[in-house]
Amino acid sequence: MGKLARRVAIVGAGMSQFGRLFPLKRNPDLWVDAWLDAVKRVDNGIEPKDVDACYIGNYSSDLFNHQGHLAPQMANFVGLSPKPASRFEGACASSGVALRQGVIAIASGIHDVIAVGGCETMNEVSTTLVTDTLATASDNLFEYPAGATFPGLYAAVASAHFHKYGTNAEDLMRIGIKNHENGTQNPFAQMQLSIKDLMDKKLSKLEKQGKDIPDWKDEFDFLKSSSNPMIASPLRLFDCSLVTDGAACVFLAAEDVAKQFTDTPIWITGTGQGSAALSLHDRDSLTSFVATKEAARQAYQMANLTPKDIQIAELHDCFTIAELVAMEDLDFYEKGKAVDAIRDGESKLDGRLPLNTSGGLKSKGHPVGATGAAQAVEIFKQMRGIAERNRQVKFDVEKALSHNLGGSGATCVVTIYQK
Amino acid sequence: MGKLARRVAIVGAGMSQFGRLFPLKRNPDLWVDAWLDAVKRVDNGIEPKDVDACYIGNYSSDLFNHQGHLAPQMANFVGLSPKPASRFEGACASSGVALRQGVIAIASGIHDVIAVGGCETMNEVSTTLVTDTLATASDNLFEYPAGATFPGLYAAVASAHFHKYGTNAEDLMRIGIKNHENGTQNPFAQMQLSIKDLMDKKLSKLEKQGKDIPDWKDEFDFLKSSSNPMIASPLRLFDCSLVTDGAACVFLAAEDVAKQFTDTPIWITGTGQGSAALSLHDRDSLTSFVATKEAARQAYQMANLTPKDIQIAELHDCFTIAELVAMEDLDFYEKGKAVDAIRDGESKLDGRLPLNTSGGLKSKGHPVGATGAAQAVEIFKQMRGIAERNRQVKFDVEKALSHNLGGSGATCVVTIYQK
Repeated sequence: MGKLARRVAIVGAGMSQFGRLFPLKRNPDLWVDAWLDAVKRVDNGIEPKDVDACYIGNYSSDLFNHQGHLAPQMANFVGLSPKPASRFEGACASSGVALRQGVIAIASGIHDVIAVGGCETMNEVSTTLVTDTLATASDNLFEYPAGATFPGLYAAVASAHFHKYGTNAEDLMRIGIKNHENGTQNPFAQMQLSIKDLMDKKLSKLEKQGKDIPDWKDEFDFLKSSSNPMIASPLRLFDCSLVTDGAACVFLAAEDVAKQFTDTPIWITGTGQGSAALSLHDRDSLTSFVATKEAARQAYQMANLTPKDIQIAELHDCFTIAELVAMEDLDFYEKGKAVDAIRDGESKLDGRLPLNTSGGLKSKGHPVGATGAAQAVEIFKQMRGIAERNRQVKFDVEKALSHNLGGSGATCVVTIYQK
Repeated sequence: MGKLARRVAIVGAGMSQFGRLFPLKRNPDLWVDAWLDAVKRVDNGIEPKDVDACYIGNYSSDLFNHQGHLAPQMANFVGLSPKPASRFEGACASSGVALRQGVIAIASGIHDVIAVGGCETMNEVSTTLVTDTLATASDNLFEYPAGATFPGLYAAVASAHFHKYGTNAEDLMRIGIKNHENGTQNPFAQMQLSIKDLMDKKLSKLEKQGKDIPDWKDEFDFLKSSSNPMIASPLRLFDCSLVTDGAACVFLAAEDVAKQFTDTPIWITGTGQGSAALSLHDRDSLTSFVATKEAARQAYQMANLTPKDIQIAELHDCFTIAELVAMEDLDFYEKGKAVDAIRDGESKLDGRLPLNTSGGLKSKGHPVGATGAAQAVEIFKQMRGIAERNRQVKFDVEKALSHNLGGSGATCVVTIYQK
């Protein structure tokens, strides 16, 4: 157990624009956009006839779009019918699960090439219904009826972390500032504005309106003001990720055929998945996610790597606190110590361990079912040295990791990539 | 491509009671019932520590129960946390997809033992909302807004088949009568009444009410009367499957470990999956499902068997017409010829090719996400010779097949089982 029978590589990856795109774009449109973008990045080209199956991650087209049974529709829109098409659901880790199942299926020998994707069109419903739909990824026997939604659940995690380790709201702000900074360099990101940009925008708006100009010395002052309203204490608006429409597509190929598509495949050498009780109250700890620890353990073991080997990572920053907890659960840092690295700027683009170079869920956006696949797209670009604008890291990335979390940590998929 | 790297067997299988069980039972309760029933049938016993992952098929707990992210919850209820837990969705073929992915995952080497299950609690919502939720498995751009629901879509299939091949409503009734007859022998079935029983019940009710007693000579007269109302011509009430709460569980094991659990594993020697456009209007034919033909082709090829080798099968009779179309699409009979076999009683329990010995979706019930796994439970029982009451077939079953269809045929999974 725990070893794959064949090696599997990414031979191409791409994504749609992320943003508020409904009704101009729906899931099939977004998926086709992502597919075409991924096709462009397959060096020797790829056609539907080369692809054996279509694996789609999606959280809840049921509730967002009143459309179930998404996978055969997606397969049909890119010319894959009548090939196998399946949907995988693991809340916000849905396309992380799809990616993992794609790796497993190719390793099994049943398929040689799989198009793995994810999509979510969240803006078809109101913000209230977005929050409500996301809340169905919590426990609907205990948490949901008590009024708990995800900002509240992650606020509990943040409060516990503050209490136990002395982390503070400014540390979370640093994570948001960094991810927005990275997002300015990603043309596919939903919000290509830094926190400084947002502050300046607010100031010029106030000026135009002839209102009092606040005395903000820096972004922190802005982030501590009522312009960044409290959502669920201690989490403010800019601690939360975005409501996004988007899709991503990753072409996986078996080692036997990968070279047909490219001379520089990106190997997936580790995949791990963990689970936990849906409810936070059923867990032993609020400051650590057992599903992440388990997924990481499996992935490191399969890849035969340690956390110290990882050079960059995309982490599931659905809330700023989630990035911090992941830094510790993945053993990049000891429990309670990630905050020092954040203060020192280690996770910035030019730091020792750049995290969320894409802008993360915070700035790139979080179309929940597409996020896992989109993380793989960023890793693919960074490892190939083709990340847009000025966000390409300055060293050769040989080993990278993505961390895709579902719900309040009841599902986690960790993937390790190597050249 | 197309060959699995390891052999995979079923070492135990079981199911919950099927029926209208909400609010007494919800998905976690049904799943635990199914798990415990399956555990009972593992000869040498099985415990959570023996199981590496939990694969759950479910169509739409989102819309039926306002609960997404089901898999980690299910895993937690049977003591599997923090192991990988994933949900698979392919409309009414959801747990067929889960079963297939389970087989693939074990073949890949990543897991040795997987608990594959399916569950659906449909009766939490009104019948109108059940119909509406099921309709989200059709195309919500064209079919759904036009008012098409599944009875209507399958009525179109039936009408086309009648027109092209001279099939008639009585032939469909024969399928229903047979499946209800089989269902009387299944203690887990939702409706353990034959059509004759239902007719007699109706007659005695009319008699009690002092109303005119209709002159019904046999079940056909009853089925042609207003007591079997037209739903979508030519399909009447008793052409439709049931609205059911239920779950099923199948333990899969790799060949290397299967013998630890039993001396008589049931091998899954073939798995195939096909897809098609969601909309009927996007297909070339109304009387044949390309997804079934593709899934069958793959499964026969992998098992190195022909349709003639199959001794019994569980077919996806969501409507009576669907069983007939499947008999032809699986190449048990030539196109347009299945009807002769139905008239001759070949598919009855004592016929040449018994179909739906469990009672099928028509009588056993159709908790949509659980159906694929429940089909495997029936095949397991028949191959082991442990089917309850008098429905055990009289010959030794060495080769069997299950056919699990999603939507109006946009997803199909075909599984072949051998001793």
